[in-house]
This record gives sequence, C-alpha cells and structure tokens, in this order.
Amino acid sequence: MGEEVTRIMIGVNESSLKGYPHPSISSKGAFEWTIKKIVRSNVSSFNLLFLHVQVPDEDGYEDVDSIYASNEDFKNMKEKERVRGTHLLEYFVNRCNEIGVSCQAWIRQGDPKDVILNEVKRLRPDLLVVGSRGLGPFQKVFVGTVSEFCWKHAECPVMTIKRSADETPRDPVDD
Amino acid sequence: MGEEVTRIMIGVNESSLKGYPHPSISSKGAFEWTIKKIVRSNVSSFNLLFLHVQVPDEDGYEDVDSIYASNEDFKNMKEKERVRGTHLLEYFVNRCNEIGVSCQAWIRQGDPKDVILNEVKRLRPDLLVVGSRGLGPFQKVFVGTVSEFCWKHAECPVMTIKRSADETPRDPVDD
Repeated sequence: MGEEVTRIMIGVNESSLKGYPHPSISSKGAFEWTIKKIVRSNVSSFNLLFLHVQVPDEDGYEDVDSIYASNEDFKNMKEKERVRGTHLLEYFVNRCNEIGVSCQAWIRQGDPKDVILNEVKRLRPDLLVVGSRGLGPFQKVFVGTVSEFCWKHAECPVMTIKRSADETPRDPVDD
Repeated sequence: MGEEVTRIMIGVNESSLKGYPHPSISSKGAFEWTIKKIVRSNVSSFNLLFLHVQVPDEDGYEDVDSIYASNEDFKNMKEKERVRGTHLLEYFVNRCNEIGVSCQAWIRQGDPKDVILNEVKRLRPDLLVVGSRGLGPFQKVFVGTVSEFCWKHAECPVMTIKRSADETPRDPVDD
C-alpha cells in the first residue's frame, strides 16, 4: 500500500481488583475488542500506542506502611512504581507481539484526564480508544469518568468501549 | 480468513446548509474518516450500515406552503420525504460502491436518539459511528446532541468523530 498506518492510542490502567500487573477489565476489553473488530488480520495497517497514566496519590502511596524520610526512600518508591507500570504495559506489548501488530508503550504521571489529552496533542494519534466501566449517572458523581472527559475534549476521534454486563464486578466502580 | 466481517453502523443526516441530497458536514466527515483510517484497503473485512433518521417535524413540514387537506396531499408529502431520504443514502451507497466495501442503507422515522438506539438493539452492529458538530456546552443546551446521547446509551462500542475546525460553518449549529 505504501500508505501510512493508522495509529491508535489506547489508555490502559491496572485492575482495582486483582492488583498489578493485571490490566483492568475495561482496558483489557477495549484492547481485545480493537484487535478483534478493527485490526483483525490487517496487522500491518495499524500501530498501537499504549499509554498508562500513574496517579501519584493512588499508585504511590496506597501500600505505604512506613514514613518516607530520606531521598533514598523516595527513590525506592519511584523505582517500585516504575516496575509496576512496566509490568502492566508488558501484558499489552506481549499480546501485540503474539498478534504481530506493531506497538509502543509508555508511562506518564499525573491526572489521567489531563495527561491523556496532552498526549493526544503531542502525538496526534488517528484514534483514541478508551474503555469505560459504563457507570450510571449516580455512580459517576462520585468517581468521575476519564472516558467521558476524553470523549468531550480529545482533539481526535474517540472510541469508547463499555465493559460488558457479564464482566461487571459486584461493585461496578471496581474494574 | 473465513471470519465474520465487522459491521459498522453509521448514522447519517442531511446538511442544514446545502439541503438535500447533500449529507451534513459531520456525517460525510465521519464516513470518510472511517474509510480512510479503519476500513483502509481491507474492504472485504467490513460491512457498513447507513441509517438515516427522518424527523417528521423537520423534514416533512419545513417547506410546506399549502395546507394538506386530503389523503392525496399526505401521500404526496410522504412520497417527497421518501425520495429525499433515498437521495441522501444514494450518496453513501455510491461511495461504497466506488471503494468496493459492502453496505446497506435504510430510512427510519422518529427521534434520532431513540431510533438509533433501537436500531442498534435490533441489528447488533459491532460499532456505531456518529459524527459530531463538536458544540460547546452553551450551544448544546439549546440544540441537544445525538452523539452524546448515543455515546451514553448505545449497547455497543461508539466512535465519535468531531467535525474539524476548518469545516465548521459560521454558525456552528449548522452542519
């Protein structure tokens, strides 16, 4: 073809149920759906970009059982975070290798909403794919949703893939 | 492959600027983007389903300059509507024929929001594609947006393709 490949950015995060390095139900679902229904066997036509945003408050401190008092402590914490993020991305990169589709993957720190929009601006993918827990309006008041924010504000087409009903955990806020 | 094709439903409507049979800027843009970035040269992997919803109040009465008094008048009006909808769909079907991708196209009457959701339930496409004017919150208060409603409620993945800034007419509510 000689045509440019279609670059699809996928926001991925960890599961709140199974812990690292497991991907969340919705980001795993969004990825597998994209492969099955969009990429299909046309692997050379697509390039997948996996963005994992680590939220410092959530990811860095939740399992803290000691006070960080020295530079060394902080360095260790950063290293631990980095390893966790890398494990998550490894899952998706390995799947892409199995399938034969090219990919890149990287980690950013910050508020997922802002980071995803900034990365869309910076890298200009053709399409942004986000998984969604499919929460109702009442649940959303409390947890906010990254997918809705991206859908409204991203400067590229956005594909939202809701978690299927039979994969929804007992507490739908979990993922 | 022997695999099932990916069925993509695209909601299309007429332009508020150019009149029938011209497609709106956003639905034409959504279609062309889907071809260029998703279908690409893999035409045998996809099947496009074009749904055009005619809103009786908008489409049937806007150019009325006489009172409909008999059954015959209503029959003529219905026929005129049917012809207009068919011309719109012809545009997309012709493009698909040129490209070599299989498609179906049909017309429904009613509120686009409800009709699109019902058609998604009935036909179970893999993906729903909707163009969007990309209106801000203030504009949306007055015009509502079909794309937002579909994004929230459709029982399948939804891809929203915003109209590009350089295609936005002077009044962004126009399309």
